[in-house]
Amino acid sequence: MPPILFTIPLWIDLTAVAIGAIQGAMFAGRFTDRRFDLLGIAIIGVTVGLGGGLLRDILLGGVPAALQSNWYLPIAGGSALLGMLLQSLFNRLGPFIIALDAVTIGLFAALGTSKALAHGLPEIPSLFVGVITAVGGSALRDMMLNVPIAVMHVGSFYAMAAGFGSALLVVLFELHVDITIAAIACVIVTTVMRILAARYGWSLPEQR
Amino acid sequence: MPPILFTIPLWIDLTAVAIGAIQGAMFAGRFTDRRFDLLGIAIIGVTVGLGGGLLRDILLGGVPAALQSNWYLPIAGGSALLGMLLQSLFNRLGPFIIALDAVTIGLFAALGTSKALAHGLPEIPSLFVGVITAVGGSALRDMMLNVPIAVMHVGSFYAMAAGFGSALLVVLFELHVDITIAAIACVIVTTVMRILAARYGWSLPEQR
Amino acid sequence: MPPILFTIPLWIDLTAVAIGAIQGAMFAGRFTDRRFDLLGIAIIGVTVGLGGGLLRDILLGGVPAALQSNWYLPIAGGSALLGMLLQSLFNRLGPFIIALDAVTIGLFAALGTSKALAHGLPEIPSLFVGVITAVGGSALRDMMLNVPIAVMHVGSFYAMAAGFGSALLVVLFELHVDITIAAIACVIVTTVMRILAARYGWSLPEQR
Repeated sequence: MPPILFTIPLWIDLTAVAIGAIQGAMFAGRFTDRRFDLLGIAIIGVTVGLGGGLLRDILLGGVPAALQSNWYLPIAGGSALLGMLLQSLFNRLGPFIIALDAVTIGLFAALGTSKALAHGLPEIPSLFVGVITAVGGSALRDMMLNVPIAVMHVGSFYAMAAGFGSALLVVLFELHVDITIAAIACVIVTTVMRILAARYGWSLPEQR
Repeated sequence: MPPILFTIPLWIDLTAVAIGAIQGAMFAGRFTDRRFDLLGIAIIGVTVGLGGGLLRDILLGGVPAALQSNWYLPIAGGSALLGMLLQSLFNRLGPFIIALDAVTIGLFAALGTSKALAHGLPEIPSLFVGVITAVGGSALRDMMLNVPIAVMHVGSFYAMAAGFGSALLVVLFELHVDITIAAIACVIVTTVMRILAARYGWSLPEQR
Repeated sequence: MPPILFTIPLWIDLTAVAIGAIQGAMFAGRFTDRRFDLLGIAIIGVTVGLGGGLLRDILLGGVPAALQSNWYLPIAGGSALLGMLLQSLFNRLGPFIIALDAVTIGLFAALGTSKALAHGLPEIPSLFVGVITAVGGSALRDMMLNVPIAVMHVGSFYAMAAGFGSALLVVLFELHVDITIAAIACVIVTTVMRILAARYGWSLPEQR
């Protein structure tokens, strides 16, 4: 069997975690009446930046990757605090952050889906694990903040973008395409769909 | 050691998952002001239909059964969407759905308790895992929807019914009764107690 | 390699669980408008008393210790019901309960940190697991009750106290200090910081 685990350099992974954590801090910044303390902000950063990967590894039954290195937790917590301090700067970088975030979701989807396939999971559960990895952190964030879970509501297209990317990865994997190429395709499709959705306001039909 | 894992045919298991998912969609249908999209409804279906089994398998330290087959996720998500579309039909089937739901809770309790026993857990934790399997999906649903967790409040008798059924299974197991018979007894007791509770309004005393 | 797992006698562990569960019931007692039933109170007791340890063991990838013995669940549930019945008594014991609770948090932090180190986790993740063990139960409680998570907000110093204690344990462990001595130091530091914080109103700076 060929190696099917898609891996990326640690610094890319940590950058993706940092972008997630900064997004988390910016989200928390909207709740000016809540009186989060600095630890609360760091917790949100850890949740958004690492939550998807933690859920993925718990579902796959192992010790989470984020707990096997000293890097992930300080990067996630520190990035959240940076995101809080430089909120106005990051707000001005809006479109750039959205683009980075789209790439991040694509990377998380590719990492999650390929890790699930490498663990021998069937196609559909692997796709599911990929989506959980991509959007699980922000869903956990919403549960912890007692706000409606964004990915469940009209107007969010995160999960669909990650789903299409993960599905493409699974199909390419079944066609014996090299896992790195399949993963890159997943990242590109997820990123492009997420950006187009943000630009043109795509959304799924509402509950009826 | 005799085989102690109670197993049921896949189609029964999937039917139970589908009933849970339909219930979840009907529950979500009450929140007409929330603007769930179709993915949100599918997520609720997956949560209610598969959540209890996911919690069970995470507590038992393995890859969840629902992720080892391509059937569970589409059945759960698809049943939820069906439940949404046919809401008025299912509402008219009210008592029939309550009866099916009661059997479902009994099945989940039997599957969870016997799987925990098969993993070598002691009696009381096995009972606990059985109850979590039976009611964990709806508790997760309530947490995700930011509503009070039904099983913790006066008027719900789900968990008690599952607890009595699971306790009976554990006792019969200790008495070396065949696991299939013990599991069937669990399903019957849970189902009957749940239906009687719904009919006669049984409830536990309130907090004082 | 020397044995690095810090263990305590079962009765001390169960006492700590009971104190957590009693605290949980007293917390639930403030919500007089919620109509929890007796099972709901027991669930809160299990959540606060055992939740941190369950999260710890799920992160470390094994069957939770609390599910490997018949003692933990009844002690947690029963203590919560006792806490509900004797609420006025426990309220009068206020300062004594705060002191016991501080020791409990310290014990949970020491157990979690040392168990993570024994599993071969690096320093920072071990500290993280220690803090999760100490405060995870009350965070889960807040999520289940749909109230803001206390440890994320100004005015709570639980997590910081557990963090300092866990950090000290990790440092002493790296210096090859005997694990029992390191754990006792962790308990003392956490306890003293928690009590001083309660007495002098220490808190972290607020989000800005």
